[in-house]
Amino acid sequence: MAIVPSYLSGQWVTPENPTKTTEVLDARTGELVAEVSTEGLDIAGAIDYARTTGQAELGKLTIHERALKLKELAIYLGEHKEALYRISDATGATQRDHYIDIDGGIGTLFTFSSKGRRELPNSHVIEDGPYEPLSKDGSFIGTHIYTRIPGVAVQINAFNFPVWGMLEKFAPAFIAGVPTLVKPATPTGYVTQACVRLMVDSGILPEGSIQLISGSARTLLDHLDYRDHVAFTGSAATAATLKSHQNVIEGGVRFTSEADSLNAAILASDITAEDPEFDAYIKVLFQEMTAKAGQKCTAVRRALVPHALVDAVAGALSSRIEEKVVLGETMGPLASFDQQRDVDAAIARLEAAGGQATRVGKRPAAGAFVEPTILTWAADAPEVHEIEAFGPVVSVLGYDDDAHAVALAAKGGGSLVATVCTREKAGEYAAGIAAHHGRLHFLDRDDAKTTTGHGSPLPMLIHGGPGRAGGGEELGGVRGVKHYMQRTAIQGTPNHLTAVTGEWHRGADVQRVTREEGEHPFRKSLTTLKIGDQFASELRPVSLEDILAFAESTGDTFYAHTDEEAAMANPFFPRRVAHGYLLVSWAAGLFVNPDPGPVLANYGLENLRFITPVTYDDSIRVELTAKRITPRVTDEYGEVAWDTVIYNQNDEIVATYDVLTLVEKA
Amino acid sequence: MAIVPSYLSGQWVTPENPTKTTEVLDARTGELVAEVSTEGLDIAGAIDYARTTGQAELGKLTIHERALKLKELAIYLGEHKEALYRISDATGATQRDHYIDIDGGIGTLFTFSSKGRRELPNSHVIEDGPYEPLSKDGSFIGTHIYTRIPGVAVQINAFNFPVWGMLEKFAPAFIAGVPTLVKPATPTGYVTQACVRLMVDSGILPEGSIQLISGSARTLLDHLDYRDHVAFTGSAATAATLKSHQNVIEGGVRFTSEADSLNAAILASDITAEDPEFDAYIKVLFQEMTAKAGQKCTAVRRALVPHALVDAVAGALSSRIEEKVVLGETMGPLASFDQQRDVDAAIARLEAAGGQATRVGKRPAAGAFVEPTILTWAADAPEVHEIEAFGPVVSVLGYDDDAHAVALAAKGGGSLVATVCTREKAGEYAAGIAAHHGRLHFLDRDDAKTTTGHGSPLPMLIHGGPGRAGGGEELGGVRGVKHYMQRTAIQGTPNHLTAVTGEWHRGADVQRVTREEGEHPFRKSLTTLKIGDQFASELRPVSLEDILAFAESTGDTFYAHTDEEAAMANPFFPRRVAHGYLLVSWAAGLFVNPDPGPVLANYGLENLRFITPVTYDDSIRVELTAKRITPRVTDEYGEVAWDTVIYNQNDEIVATYDVLTLVEKA
Repeated sequence: MAIVPSYLSGQWVTPENPTKTTEVLDARTGELVAEVSTEGLDIAGAIDYARTTGQAELGKLTIHERALKLKELAIYLGEHKEALYRISDATGATQRDHYIDIDGGIGTLFTFSSKGRRELPNSHVIEDGPYEPLSKDGSFIGTHIYTRIPGVAVQINAFNFPVWGMLEKFAPAFIAGVPTLVKPATPTGYVTQACVRLMVDSGILPEGSIQLISGSARTLLDHLDYRDHVAFTGSAATAATLKSHQNVIEGGVRFTSEADSLNAAILASDITAEDPEFDAYIKVLFQEMTAKAGQKCTAVRRALVPHALVDAVAGALSSRIEEKVVLGETMGPLASFDQQRDVDAAIARLEAAGGQATRVGKRPAAGAFVEPTILTWAADAPEVHEIEAFGPVVSVLGYDDDAHAVALAAKGGGSLVATVCTREKAGEYAAGIAAHHGRLHFLDRDDAKTTTGHGSPLPMLIHGGPGRAGGGEELGGVRGVKHYMQRTAIQGTPNHLTAVTGEWHRGADVQRVTREEGEHPFRKSLTTLKIGDQFASELRPVSLEDILAFAESTGDTFYAHTDEEAAMANPFFPRRVAHGYLLVSWAAGLFVNPDPGPVLANYGLENLRFITPVTYDDSIRVELTAKRITPRVTDEYGEVAWDTVIYNQNDEIVATYDVLTLVEKA
Repeated sequence: MAIVPSYLSGQWVTPENPTKTTEVLDARTGELVAEVSTEGLDIAGAIDYARTTGQAELGKLTIHERALKLKELAIYLGEHKEALYRISDATGATQRDHYIDIDGGIGTLFTFSSKGRRELPNSHVIEDGPYEPLSKDGSFIGTHIYTRIPGVAVQINAFNFPVWGMLEKFAPAFIAGVPTLVKPATPTGYVTQACVRLMVDSGILPEGSIQLISGSARTLLDHLDYRDHVAFTGSAATAATLKSHQNVIEGGVRFTSEADSLNAAILASDITAEDPEFDAYIKVLFQEMTAKAGQKCTAVRRALVPHALVDAVAGALSSRIEEKVVLGETMGPLASFDQQRDVDAAIARLEAAGGQATRVGKRPAAGAFVEPTILTWAADAPEVHEIEAFGPVVSVLGYDDDAHAVALAAKGGGSLVATVCTREKAGEYAAGIAAHHGRLHFLDRDDAKTTTGHGSPLPMLIHGGPGRAGGGEELGGVRGVKHYMQRTAIQGTPNHLTAVTGEWHRGADVQRVTREEGEHPFRKSLTTLKIGDQFASELRPVSLEDILAFAESTGDTFYAHTDEEAAMANPFFPRRVAHGYLLVSWAAGLFVNPDPGPVLANYGLENLRFITPVTYDDSIRVELTAKRITPRVTDEYGEVAWDTVIYNQNDEIVATYDVLTLVEKA
């Protein structure tokens, strides 16, 4: 049997004549599938390679360019997913499980590709939040930026999601521009290896973007420091060992962990057994017990229901399992025989603590199967909140009232996710349990059909949770990208901040043109337009007739524009004033360049604030400055945001906003 | 000598007849100032008190109400700051140092009070980012919220800022609604105690908001778990000890640390000795050596300058010190005699490693003084990047070129802050060193006079840094508040999310009125208005004449509105279309309620996006829904944000935005 190769420093490598290997068995049959060893592999060299070649090659691409590559990669993997399904069959996964792991992983790439391009700038620096004035004259200002960490993103994964578990960490790190080193769990690492091989063979990824250690890597953290990031998924015990490493404690390695937790699903007190919500709730329990044979860190372990409904819930769940589950067909074995032993032992401990076990169906003789098991509890016991059976096992526990359910949920000591099935009590439950959870899933008749489920982390929402759940955070759309970046406060002049962020900051140098002199910036395509290109208009007087005509034509006859006495009684207006909409409409008239040209459309406006009212006999002028230029990687145009300031005749600021336009590349 | 009291569970307490106390000496004279002991104090009781009484009392106030209390507290402390100055004199602080510590701390309260009210909702839940559609029909959506952590905010502080160090951690935790337990450093804890006493005596803070342990608290972390937060400032060694605690490693205590670092100030290669930037750079070095006698975690330890300018920099700095520093008057002693010994030892080690020391002035016989000391280096040595002399000591080191300066700066292994003195190279330096720093301070002639300085953390910018700097993050305006909150993903129906966040989400239930039926929501004050109150207009047809008249009156004659052929050639428009500004102006006319009433003004617009173009002979209508209601705690009105959607005659979405209004409370 060949040893599963690793991919280090751009080469596929396998130990030669290792003194010891670990055997990996087919979960369905117990046959040997693979052997694993990392003896003699050059881990230090791989870290160095990531920090040098990987960082350099990824740094040649912008955030959008990297995001686009994720889409290409997703398409490529989609074309080869059948091969991954077949390799993954030996892990005990059913076709439904393949959709979760393999299609789910590919879908994560698509989502990150799309969000990276829509929600992040097409550059290397992400500015965080509005800038801060730090001096009265505007010569000293501050802002925050994210830049990629200068090291390697190490991922240490669990056995249950050999593909999704890798891709959900790879995607955000890749967009951030940080090279990845994957260390999958041994029982299913051969599936990860097959996926990494596809990724490498695709030729899509820059050199050094990804490396793979197939097997144990006990010395891995010895080589890391504050430049690096470790994202761990797995048991709390291993998390503690890694977190205690000197390079984490003293060396500043960025460490985040996601551990299994005793997730609750609560049937709130406003739901009765006759409501459609009751069925939806049973379906959630069923889904979480049987998908991946319950081997999900997000699976429901504790069903918290009104005392009176414990038997009804257990009965309905049992019936549904009997109806739907055929072991080996609709539900697979556990991923390994070790897991089977662990789960059997955990069930035994739960029974010893007072859980009344109902086993539905009977496990086949071969394979690492465990039959779906429902435990009901006559009374609360500490063990139900502590012992995790990482398989198709759920405890059903009664509560007194909603406050009691909140307290029971918190006894999990921090969880990844909870479902709350309720129509009326979402606010109450969120206030009580949100801070103990990374995700809350609310269920009622209106989303019962459209929910993506209790147990499915989504790429656009954060995944992780406090306390027992590991205290980490992953995914969450562009939040996940920032996990691989350092946030840094920047102070300096507007010119300094403009140079650092690539976005023009008010007060920085401009190249100013007027109607009389210079080329209007709307005549410039993205290849010639520069941030700081500014158009400054002439003054235009505003008359009472203009205001009244605007009120008439638009229908906006609000008294502040039409009734002198009432306007004067308003605390903010001196007398009748121009409509804010008149001001921005006129501003467009003042800055427009009417003939066809590179500016295709004004697609929106941001952060409009009216500062100083404009009354009749005032005048206004506008300054429009190219602030942010974002060429699209997939279109012949891009976005340009224009910093826009309307002034009155006394140079007081009337209004500020960003005009958003689409502009041709050439 | 009385023992410095602690303030626990709402009582001032002092150990009775302790077996051992620690003596604290006057840094100027060596006289006994205070004794310290925590023997027998009920720490477990204090934690429990915070989690129960403190959480309950703080939870009765909204974010804005808490923020307003910070302003009241700042005013109160400002009225009593002279007393704090006099108590703090014994720490060796000069009047200039008092401004940094005491006025700086009070200023932090003001800033957080203001930012909390301007940038956060007036509620208990902060929604994070836009919501995410998770189903095609809109029945299942997601968002993220922040809610306060359900435990206690423990702060363990350094000796150098007994007031600022406490208040900069207290302010964000308080706004978040999390009770604080302060453990100051023993050498200056009597100053902290005096400030906490003022805070308690002010009567402004809710019961349980703050507690104080005056002295050592080695068992403190034994009582904490994942609900709690520990913010540590001090030495890397102590940080490592705390970070290794079982309750951090396994128990999930949220731990952040801020440690001294070997901060660099770089004179970039574009600056010569003749430039005004050179003087500004020398002033930064001088300020950082002498303020607080160099006892700032942010102080400059490494001046990186072109080789050719090492002597010029050292000479100019030495001259300035000779001119300005009178030990005991313009620069104080170190905070303790232990510190004096440590700094002398560190200087000796730096000299042994090759540093050439110039001591400017001579230390007085009494007091914990160290004279300003400049070390110049003929060649780079590891020690210059490793040994920190926590006093008025700086190393001046030459670099070859800017890339070398970047590499030298990174040798600090992660720093709180670096100054870069440059006009042309801000972008290059940020790309090279931002990820190794928590803050970058750019300096040139334009901000030389207005800069708040290299060493001053500001409440609106983050403070902290990777690696050696502790890996933590504090402050940063409302970012700092979120450090004391848990981020949780929320999934459910629009009604669920509305109940959880207190903000209306598109698709949630509405109370709909029209011109024909029901009371217009603009007739409702904040006491009667409810989120979900909706006004739906009739359709209004748009004619070509309307478009051309709008072009004429506003001056916005862009071809897409005025030239049929050119409009048709544009990729986004079917033929001539209405101006976006026409649409929003008409929408205002469609939803307006013209007579004087509770709606005072439309002060802005957010997130305007034009989705479907409107051409002539189309019609538009608008739906306006109360989305977010924010009563101000200091005014008779508040903000209401209205979700606004313009539809065409086919119910396609034409534009979406938020209308921002000011509305009277009653």
